Amino acid sequence: MIARLELQTRKRTEMIDITGEVQGEVARSGVRSGLCLVWVPHTTAGLTVNENADPSVRRDILAALDRLVPREGDYRHSEGNSDGHIKSTLCGRDVTLAVEEGALVLGTWQGLFFCEFDGPRRRSVIVKVFADR
Amino acid sequence: MIARLELQTRKRTEMIDITGEVQGEVARSGVRSGLCLVWVPHTTAGLTVNENADPSVRRDILAALDRLVPREGDYRHSEGNSDGHIKSTLCGRDVTLAVEEGALVLGTWQGLFFCEFDGPRRRSVIVKVFADR
Amino acid sequence: MIARLELQTRKRTEMIDITGEVQGEVARSGVRSGLCLVWVPHTTAGLTVNENADPSVRRDILAALDRLVPREGDYRHSEGNSDGHIKSTLCGRDVTLAVEEGALVLGTWQGLFFCEFDGPRRRSVIVKVFADR
Repeated sequence: MIARLELQTRKRTEMIDITGEVQGEVARSGVRSGLCLVWVPHTTAGLTVNENADPSVRRDILAALDRLVPREGDYRHSEGNSDGHIKSTLCGRDVTLAVEEGALVLGTWQGLFFCEFDGPRRRSVIVKVFADR
Repeated sequence: MIARLELQTRKRTEMIDITGEVQGEVARSGVRSGLCLVWVPHTTAGLTVNENADPSVRRDILAALDRLVPREGDYRHSEGNSDGHIKSTLCGRDVTLAVEEGALVLGTWQGLFFCEFDGPRRRSVIVKVFADR
Repeated sequence: MIARLELQTRKRTEMIDITGEVQGEVARSGVRSGLCLVWVPHTTAGLTVNENADPSVRRDILAALDRLVPREGDYRHSEGNSDGHIKSTLCGRDVTLAVEEGALVLGTWQGLFFCEFDGPRRRSVIVKVFADR
């Protein structure tokens, strides 16, 4: 089963919790035990897992990435979004999760976040659920 | 097959080789050919693969992360562990490995490391082994 | 199905597009729908997905990694390639992709890149294709 989520981001950099939407696709797939691959098909965005409680954590992650990879720098790519490409590589764009009893296996404080590094834009996320034998 | 390893970390930041324990779970699963997903269910820890021979490599990785993401900084999250959350996103928390002939497929110098970024704590690691058809 | 690609890198740091070779292994496997795990069995190299059009993006990613993790620094590992080990952990060494209709599921601008951080060397990449039920 493969599905595509659609998102509209609102800021240049942003982390959006997509745990519920991905869990919805797992439920729709009917898979009780297996794997779930989540994939961002963009090159100036990413995917991460981090704390879903205090929104300050997301702010601190985005601020640290801005500090490490400033928007302006010694870049050659002429579209003004080299920082977004570099952050995408540092962050990663694919996460594979376990599925047990029809649910994603996540720690208590873990949420799955779409990371926008060159918004606002329309974006999509691919979800593939894979059943155990 | 899904299993949970338990760890006690001893320092604030630390890399612990868990290759043997994960290989043990692969053996217990009886899977000869497939995939092995390893997942850290924490938001201030990570998982990486790097050199298992010279311990200086681990020291250099942890020191570089400390330099890039200092413990004290312009952070809003009030628990004093923003650096751990940021490092978790930079490092990643899931690794998927191939299994062939009942063993993890790793390069000669590769070990799988649990990365503690806010210890010492009790931690766990989830291992899911998935058989080929 | 598991396969091994062989590469000869030409520079100390370099990003080499291996999308076509990996897609070739997917075709050879005969798998129409499933997953494809790509794994770098080295500890001073990595794997990423980023823009495959403008080569300046690759240059900007490698230059940013050089700035964040300089070749010379406060390193203990005596082989002179600590920067390569650290970059390998920041970049990651495994990517899992979806396979649909016999092809890798990638965004329009996405290519899969082998990242050399301590070349030139002979390198290999492991590709495992996994079929849906």
